[in-house]
Parts: sequence; structure tokens; C-alpha cells
Amino acid sequence: MQVVITGAAGMLGLKLVRAILAKGTLAGPDGAQTAVDKIVATDIVASPEMPTDGRVAFVAGDVFDPGLIRRLVTPGTGSIFHLAGVVSAGAERDFDLGYRVNLDGHRVVLEAARALGSAPRVVFASSLATYGGDLPETITDEQKLTPQTSYGVQKVIGELLTMDYTRKGFIDGRSLRLPTIVVRPGKPNLAASTFASSIIREPLKGERATCPVDPSAMMPLLSPRLCVEAFIRAHELPGAEWGWNRSLMLPSLDMSVAEMADGLKRVAGQKAYDLIDWKPDAMIAKIVAGWPRRLASKRARAMGFRSDASMDAIIQAFIEDDLPAAKKAAG
Amino acid sequence: MQVVITGAAGMLGLKLVRAILAKGTLAGPDGAQTAVDKIVATDIVASPEMPTDGRVAFVAGDVFDPGLIRRLVTPGTGSIFHLAGVVSAGAERDFDLGYRVNLDGHRVVLEAARALGSAPRVVFASSLATYGGDLPETITDEQKLTPQTSYGVQKVIGELLTMDYTRKGFIDGRSLRLPTIVVRPGKPNLAASTFASSIIREPLKGERATCPVDPSAMMPLLSPRLCVEAFIRAHELPGAEWGWNRSLMLPSLDMSVAEMADGLKRVAGQKAYDLIDWKPDAMIAKIVAGWPRRLASKRARAMGFRSDASMDAIIQAFIEDDLPAAKKAAG
Repeated sequence: MQVVITGAAGMLGLKLVRAILAKGTLAGPDGAQTAVDKIVATDIVASPEMPTDGRVAFVAGDVFDPGLIRRLVTPGTGSIFHLAGVVSAGAERDFDLGYRVNLDGHRVVLEAARALGSAPRVVFASSLATYGGDLPETITDEQKLTPQTSYGVQKVIGELLTMDYTRKGFIDGRSLRLPTIVVRPGKPNLAASTFASSIIREPLKGERATCPVDPSAMMPLLSPRLCVEAFIRAHELPGAEWGWNRSLMLPSLDMSVAEMADGLKRVAGQKAYDLIDWKPDAMIAKIVAGWPRRLASKRARAMGFRSDASMDAIIQAFIEDDLPAAKKAAG
Repeated sequence: MQVVITGAAGMLGLKLVRAILAKGTLAGPDGAQTAVDKIVATDIVASPEMPTDGRVAFVAGDVFDPGLIRRLVTPGTGSIFHLAGVVSAGAERDFDLGYRVNLDGHRVVLEAARALGSAPRVVFASSLATYGGDLPETITDEQKLTPQTSYGVQKVIGELLTMDYTRKGFIDGRSLRLPTIVVRPGKPNLAASTFASSIIREPLKGERATCPVDPSAMMPLLSPRLCVEAFIRAHELPGAEWGWNRSLMLPSLDMSVAEMADGLKRVAGQKAYDLIDWKPDAMIAKIVAGWPRRLASKRARAMGFRSDASMDAIIQAFIEDDLPAAKKAAG
């Protein structure tokens, strides 16, 4: 069968392509493990890191272009992983672009899936940005969604549409609210959360990194490795295990920034630890203070989703999965 | 200033037009009471009950037609009341129409409001259909929104968009989740809730009515009179009193169907009461059992919104506001 992945040239998209290639099969429309003959990977621009495998076909284009998506989601498409999206800061800066990609684009994908007539499994990447406002210390599965950004609003809408298309029998959808993904490979970006990866990644490469928040700031973390495992688990679980509620807050390892840095010290030594510059930035600290601090993801754990065992394990996964390439890229 | 009302030929729309005409002024963009020179009333079809007042201009058309809405929401528009929508059963029957009117139509209205550049006040009629699933006995302001119908999904999305457009400063929006509106004038319709009005309205006209649910079934009620009062109050309150949370569950009078019928007996006598036929309908009973039973609308009450004092008061409001016209229409 064919699998379509949007946002496939992104960090998680690339890892998902590789994981599906390695696994070789996914649950088909009838639930039985079925060989994945073809992965249609799409994104706005290609990535040099896209695996060169006969099963992977990359197509560049906009997810909100109905013509493109209809050409990609052809009969034989068993599953769709919808990861494409304008990120938080981007959706905040360009209101219209955010809605075009994150809302209209999502609807285009859902309509293409519906047109198949086979109710394909659709896995949607949602976000903790769906929470906001006056949050309790620990977020439970009962927390109401009160997003405070356009990105968060668009993700809630995406979850609602996924649920409604599933209820109508048009798709078999599953939405995952991702914790803060750490350690991200690559370079720092404009996201307010970028420091959470930088303070681990840069020192491991022997470079300095700045931490703009107080050491006591809490972050619910998930490694890219377990995030991709969660995408696949979300796909593989039978619809009956999901029931009507197709949205799931993934489990996280809730760490203070101090605990994150201590993990670095344990794994890579004092010298690496000393490469972190603690320079508080009031603006970033304020943004981070509005985020969820701890997640009690009871439902996800009951469904077999797991969080990283320790900060050390998160760092170790990065060292194994991404550090060699990162060092190579740095030359 | 000009006021635009969508869904203006509906039951609540007509009452809102009349109420604004009677009031004569509304809070303008600067908050000061400003004369309403013109009400642009729009709906898919005209109503013979539309007030013939020099200040009212009715325009027939589809709310999802950007050209139409842009022509109606002209500079000088101080406020918009967005009541238009495909009802619950309709949105369930025709998935595409529901999304076209209730989602795309809402976005068209919001974009027209945004284009004014003056951040006009926009009042949006939402619904208890935003709740669903495993509901507690009493719904509080903290209840998370888990709609189980396309209509409910579309209303949640409408609230989220209203909130986001407000946060960005494009509009000054306010969304009201309406309880079950009783007593509705007119004829029974296809809504599962239609009996709640029928069992009062028909006996008052000397006609028989069927109650398809158990007398113990609970309904959170609001009279059309207080609902229109709430639309206007929602409009008049300064934005600061709303804060970032622009969604509000209105207060209700929570009554069992038995208590509703008892009210009828007190107001109109045993003879009227005996016109109710108690014929359980399992399908309707099941739908109604999934609805909210009681609302603890703390926030709305703190903001000065009120519920009807008693079932007798609800019936009396219908007798005063709508029964003469209903009898005339029947005669």
C-alpha cells in the first residue's frame, strides 16, 4: 500500500519516513500488517536528507493546494501522516498564511482522504499550544483547550475536524498533542522553545549555547525517537481502542531546565555543562511561563504510549541518532 | 451607525431586530451609546414578520458568499450579530453544507469585519452542542468542549475563530452558548428539541402536543426574551469585562419536563395540561439524554446575565410576546 506523509522534509517527517522504511509494513485498512510499497513524501521544499530508497517519492508543493494533494492521495493510499504546518511563531507573524496552511491545508488533506472512500487512517500532529490561559501545575486529560495563539487555535480546529471526519466514517483519524521535542538536530530556529534543544545539542558539539530562562522553568519533554514511535503506535492501534475521542496528549518526561543541564553534565561532563550561558531573557521567559509545565497523560499511558526514561536517555538517543550527522555537517 | 445581523429572518434574529429598533442605540466602537441609523438584516429568505421600519434594510443571500457579505459590511458598520447557521440536524444530514455555512460563512463574516479596520463588536450565537460525550450532571465553565455532532464542532470552531480574531485586534468578539430556547413561536421543526416548545405552545393554542421523552428528562431553558436581552448585553459590555475568554455559557433555568408541564398547568390549567400526550420515542430520548442537563453558569451570572425566574415566567413571556400572533396565524 501507499503512505502519504506531509511535512515529510521536516525533522520529524524525515525520521518518520526512515522508521516506516525500516519497519516495512503498517496496518492496512483491514487492520492486517501490509507491505508499504510506496511513501509519497511531500513538503514545500526538498531535503537533502530524504532517504534515497526506491519506495520513496518526494513531491514538492503546498499542502493547501487541492490539485496537488488530490494527485498525491491516489487510490491505494492506505494511510496519511499529516505533519505539515506553519510553526507557532510563523502563524503568529503571518495570520493569513497560518490559516491557509494549518486550517485550509488540513481540510484539503481530509477531503482527499475522504474522497478515497476507504476511510484511511490519518495521523495528525497536534501540539501543547492547544492549551493556554490560566493553566494548572499539571495538565490532565480533562483540561479544556484554551489556546492563546493562532497556531494553537488552528491545531484545536485540526483535532476537531479529525474527530468529526472520523465520526462520519470518512477517515479513521488520530491526533497527537506533542510535548516539547528535545533534542532536535539542526540549527537553532526562531521558536521560543529552541533553547531547550540548543542547551544540549550545542555543548555536545563543543559549542556554546544560551539558556534564556530560569533553571527552575519546567518543560514536558519527548525525544524525537519516541515521538516517531508514537506516530506509528497511534497509526497501528485499532480504531476501537481510540473510541470517539481521537485526540491524545502524549506522555512526557517533565524536567526543569536545571535537571536538563544536570543530565548533560552526567552524560558529557562538566566541560560540556560549562558551555551553557545562563542569560535570562524576560520575553522568552514570559512565553515559556505560559506553557504547560507537567503532563499527566493517563489515557496515553494506558494506551501503551511511553515517555523517555530519563534526561540521560533523551541525550543518549540524540547522540546515537543525530550527533554524528550534526558533527559531520559542522565540518 | 450601522448594525449588520445575519440569520435575521430567524426566530431570534427577528426579535433581535425589534429589540435594537426599540432600544435605538448601541455601544459604538468607542463604547459610547450611538444611534443605530440602519440595521442591515440578511438571511437566505425574507420573513413577512421583518419589521417595516425605515431603519431596516433586508438583503437575501448566502452568508458564505464573500461578495454579498463585503457589500453589506460597509464602512460605518459598528457592530455585527452573527446568528446565521445551518441547524444541528441539517448540518448532520448535509456535511458539506454545514461546513460551508457554519465554518466558511463564519470566516467570511469575520474577514469582512476585519476589513473594516475598526475592530467592530461581533456577537456570535454558539450552542450547548459544543458539549458532548460523557458529561457530568452539571456543566461548569471549566467543562472541556467535546462536541459529538458536526454542528457542535462548527460552533466550537466559530468560538475559537472569534477568540483569535479578537486577540489579534481584528474584531471585538463575544460568543454566547445558548441554552434550549423555550418557548419558540411557530411550528414544530425537525430539531430533536422541538417538543420542549411544542408541549407548552400547542396546548396554549388549544392543540394537542406529543412529549417523546420521560418526564424526568432535564432541560436547561432560556426564554427568547432573555436570549435577545443576552445578545444585547453581550454586545454592550466593554471588552475589558470579557478579557481574553470571549466564550460564555449563558445561565439557564434547569427544569425537568415534568416541571415544565406543571408550569403549564399552573398558568393555563388542567385542560391545557391534558393536551400533552406522553408517548416515549426511544430515538429522541437517546439524543436528549446526551445533552447537558444542568448549567452552573457562574461567569455569566457574575457578568450580569440572567436566567428566567421560573417556568411560569417563561410561559408568561411567550403569552405576552408571541401567543397573539400565533393564534392569529392559526386562525
